[in-house]
Formats: sequence, structure tokens, C-alpha cells
Amino acid sequence: MLVPSSNRPALAVPVKAPVLPREVQPHLAEFERFFAAQIDTFEAPLRELVRYIFASHGKRIRPTLVFCSGWTDNGRIVPDQIYAAAMVELVHLATLVHDDVLDGAVLRHQSPTVSHKFGPHVAVLLGDALLAQALKIASDSLSIELSRAMASATRRVCAGEIQQTLERGNPRFSVAQYFEVISMKTGELFAVSCLLGARAGGHPEEFIEAAARFGLQLGIAYQLFDDMADFCGDEDKIGKTLGTDLASGKFTLPLLTLIERLPENEAANLRRDVLAGLTDIKTLTARMNEHGVLKSVRERFESELRIGEEALGQWDGLPARARLLDLAGYVRAQVSRLLD
Amino acid sequence: MLVPSSNRPALAVPVKAPVLPREVQPHLAEFERFFAAQIDTFEAPLRELVRYIFASHGKRIRPTLVFCSGWTDNGRIVPDQIYAAAMVELVHLATLVHDDVLDGAVLRHQSPTVSHKFGPHVAVLLGDALLAQALKIASDSLSIELSRAMASATRRVCAGEIQQTLERGNPRFSVAQYFEVISMKTGELFAVSCLLGARAGGHPEEFIEAAARFGLQLGIAYQLFDDMADFCGDEDKIGKTLGTDLASGKFTLPLLTLIERLPENEAANLRRDVLAGLTDIKTLTARMNEHGVLKSVRERFESELRIGEEALGQWDGLPARARLLDLAGYVRAQVSRLLD
Repeated sequence: MLVPSSNRPALAVPVKAPVLPREVQPHLAEFERFFAAQIDTFEAPLRELVRYIFASHGKRIRPTLVFCSGWTDNGRIVPDQIYAAAMVELVHLATLVHDDVLDGAVLRHQSPTVSHKFGPHVAVLLGDALLAQALKIASDSLSIELSRAMASATRRVCAGEIQQTLERGNPRFSVAQYFEVISMKTGELFAVSCLLGARAGGHPEEFIEAAARFGLQLGIAYQLFDDMADFCGDEDKIGKTLGTDLASGKFTLPLLTLIERLPENEAANLRRDVLAGLTDIKTLTARMNEHGVLKSVRERFESELRIGEEALGQWDGLPARARLLDLAGYVRAQVSRLLD
Repeated sequence: MLVPSSNRPALAVPVKAPVLPREVQPHLAEFERFFAAQIDTFEAPLRELVRYIFASHGKRIRPTLVFCSGWTDNGRIVPDQIYAAAMVELVHLATLVHDDVLDGAVLRHQSPTVSHKFGPHVAVLLGDALLAQALKIASDSLSIELSRAMASATRRVCAGEIQQTLERGNPRFSVAQYFEVISMKTGELFAVSCLLGARAGGHPEEFIEAAARFGLQLGIAYQLFDDMADFCGDEDKIGKTLGTDLASGKFTLPLLTLIERLPENEAANLRRDVLAGLTDIKTLTARMNEHGVLKSVRERFESELRIGEEALGQWDGLPARARLLDLAGYVRAQVSRLLD
């Protein structure tokens, strides 16, 4: 792979994998217990599948968001936080399972996807069952407001994904539309995680709003990281097949930025080649490096994240703010590990 | 098509299409208004799709069940009935949209399926959005119990569909397993429609249980009708492609009964041919008629329906009972139209 040396600092030691704020580890352990206990409540034909998808999980970043935004000085774990964490994770897993059907992805978090292992029929139905389980926890958790916010966020996640799908192959798909899509498909679930967490933690109304705003921005930034990783990640580290987005014709910010920087005829050729599945990921990444694309996307990542951090500006006295800023640092460290 | 004349009465006039109990027409009209008003609450990219799926609808049998089981003497329309009706119809539509993706169906209710018209990606996501909308109405409708029952039923519908999918190609799939599957995939939503309707109507606890039991049996009977229609329906009348279940390797009761009645080696050949997609629907229907298969399935339909009617036995004085029995008559008339 051609990577100009100017973009790569000469590191003597490998960058360590970033870790989630350790203060919420007891919360996450409690969440895992609650989550695992859900398995036996599923009907027999679903149990093995649910066990599989629960085990091949990611970093639980959305549950972590719930716990960080709901953080109180004594580190108390509130039942509503556990319910909210389970709901957002279930919705997230449902969308992953369905995404993998649609993208024909083979690997996710280093394990075969449900769609690859059990077939697309089973994957579609399992996703539905996970959504239904989120509805069940919502109705068991007794808070109507929690349930309502969750439902709206879920619908907006679907709306974002649908917009992305409908725009595939649209030669005029713009950077503005890209941000619209990722705000919905990723930002919404991050935002509602913070909203529900902060509410469960009993924080003031203004902080709850600020936390939700932070969540939205963190989600946008996280998606930018994920979209960069599709081009220049290490499959072993990110745990999914490289170039999956590209192969499915998604015009993400790195690709849109490259197109913007190419002469008109080259840009048109590239758009056409991507839609025809004729692009080679290594060549493309090399061209991105030539044109400073990843550097520019990283700057946008930074500015989006900073807007989120600034939303929390006036909450110095609240320990939840420190936890959320830790989490922003975690996502920033992920990008650093990817690009530095 | 070879149909022995003994199975077909010499009808001079065509059998009229059965109609739903006319007493609930005002309720259904109110439901349609509420349902149509939902469209504008969806995000822009979803609106056209939701409008399409709402318009190409079926007979609204599940909302009708809600209204019939919640019937009171004065014919009053209770808001909780409208919410419940919208929820069950949304879950039903979501499963239809996903089923059509999985079965590759082209027509549903005489219109192109969402999957055929907009592609499988959009269909999967639209189904998810419809499930999320059901969750939203549940949380807006304020009754935790309604919401909880709905969530459990939805999960069981998915479990039934998954069991059916996992059993495809299992040469030992039995009649008992078939009934297990259809109780979940169809019976559950019919049962919860009755439960929610009867609860909203303010009926006694014992009647609510009886209504749910009736709903379960009606759902089973309705599925038997639907499975017979896959073999001997009139595409124009039933509005979907004939042989869809057969083509996707589903062993429904007509097929399982034929297999039971064939000599062992013929049965094994037939199982193999179905799984290899080598069966011809006309030949198969002729063989079913030779062996009295549809007659036998119809008898089972009758006995399942009668168990449901008997569950309502002691509720003579309750007008809701008469409405539900009308609905049983409606389903019976559908079968009569199909086979007589």
C-alpha cells in the first residue's frame, strides 16, 4: 500500500488498543448479567441464535454511554440504566444483524455474521425478535417517556438507513446528505443512550439535553471513524471485512472528499467505477493519501467531536461530564490507533 | 386441473366474496383515519414507502378482531381499541414485508410487494420502521399491560417464523410441529388482538381469556385456510402468487397430509422433489384431490374453529360474543368460497 511517509509518524512501539472508562466496568458487568439472563426468556427456536449474537458482541459503546451520562458521585447503578442499556444494545444488534444481511458481510467482530452462518432468512427474523425484545423491556421498565424516546430513535435509525439505501447510485449524493444520513443512522442511538442514561441518573433537565447533544456529536464522530476504518483499518483490529461499505456502493465521507478533490472527469469515472464495483481498495486508499483525504476527514472528526464536548462546557461540577469526556477521549484514541 | 366432480357442487352462481361484520365498519373507518394520520409522522425518506404499504393492504382482519372482541352494546369506539388495532396491523404488515423479502414474492394483495418494487434492502428497513412505530404507539397509548402483551406476541411471531425457517428441509417435520409453528406465527397475533380488544372494551377477566383463546384458534384456522389457498386458490381472488409456500419449501398441512397418505417410497420422492423445487402445483393439487387431502384439511379447519367457538360458549349475554362468532362465520365463508 502506498502511504506517503509524511502521513505516518515513525512509531517505535505499537499504539495500544484504547479501553473504555474503567469506572463503568461494574455497570457493564451488571449489564452483561441482565443481558445474559434475557437469553432464557426467548422461545426455544430463538435461544441458540440470541446466545450467538450476544456472545459475538462489540465494545458495548452504547451501554457505556448510558452509564457515563447517568454517572453519579457514588457510582450507584440504577435499574433504569440497565434497562436503557439493554434496549439500546438490542436495537443496535438488530440493525447490525439486518445490515449484514443487506451487505452480504461475512465477518463482524471477528466472528461469522448471523446471515453468513444461519442464512439471511434467519437473520431477518432474529433482527425482528431483537427489536421485539427491546419493546418488551421498554414495557417492563415502566417509564413511558423512556419507551417513547427509544421508539422514536429506532424509527429514525431506520429512516437514516433507508435514505442511505435509496441514495445508492445517486450521482449527486452530497456531503450534506451524508451528514443527514449518519446523524440519523448512528447519531440518534448515541443521543438516546445519553438521554436515557442522564434521565435515569436523575440529572437536571438542561444537562440531559446537553448529554443528548453530546451523544449525537459523538455518534457522528464515531461513524466518521468507522467510515475511515473501512478504507485503512486492520481487519484483525476492527474485526470486519475491509471495503464492505465500498463494495455495497455507499458513498462515505472519505470517498466523497476524494471525489471533490479530483478533476471533474476523473471524479465522474471514479463514481461510475464504484457503482460498477470496479474499484480496488488499495489503489483507492493510495489516492486518498495523495490528496490528503484522510487528514481532512480526521479534521472533520475532530470538529464534530469538539462541538459535542463544548455542549457539556458549563457542567464542570457534574461527575457525569468527566465520564462522557473520557468516552470522547476513547473514540479519539481509536482514530489515533487507526491513522497514526 | 383434475378435480373429481364429487368435490365440486354444481354451482350455477359464483359464491360471493364474504364480508366482514358490518357492525364494525365505523370502527374500521376510524382506524383507517388514525392509520393514515400516522404516515406524516414518519421521516421524509419513509413516508412514500409507508403510504404504499398502508394502501396495498388486506382485509384488516386483525383490527376487526380487536373491535369485535371489544364490542359493547352501544357500539362505542374506545381510543385504546384504535391504538391496539394500529399496533397489531403494524406488526402484521412488518412481518408481511419481511416475509416477501425472504420468499421472493412478487405480488401481495394484487400489488407488487415492497421487496419487488423497492428492493430487498428497503423492504427489510421498512419492516423495522413499522415495528418501531408499533413500539411508539405502545408507548404513546399509556397502558403498560397492552404494550407488554404486544411485545411478547411479536417475539413469539418471530419465533414461529424462525422455527419454520430452521425446519425447512427437515425430512421429519411433523404435523405436530406444523401446528406449533402456526400457533406462534399466526395464532399469537390473532390472540393478542382479541386480548387487547376485550380489555379495552372493559369486559370481565374470564371473557378476556376466552376471547384470547378464541383468537388463537381462529388464527390457526385462518392459517389452514391460507395454506389451502396456496394450492387451490384463484390468484385474482386471493391476490397473491399461487404456490409461493410450496416454492419456498414450506411443508404446510395439505402437503404433509398428502405425504402421510402416499406409499412410503412415493412419499420420500415427493419430499425430495419439493425440496429440489421440482413439483408442479397442478399435478400436486390433482393428487391431493385423489387422496381426499383438502377435504381432510377442511375437517381439521372446522374442528380447530369449533374449539374456538366453544371457548366463548358461556358468554351468551355478551354482544362481543356474537361479533366474534360473525367473524368465525366470515373465515368459514372464505373456505367455502375456496373449495365449494
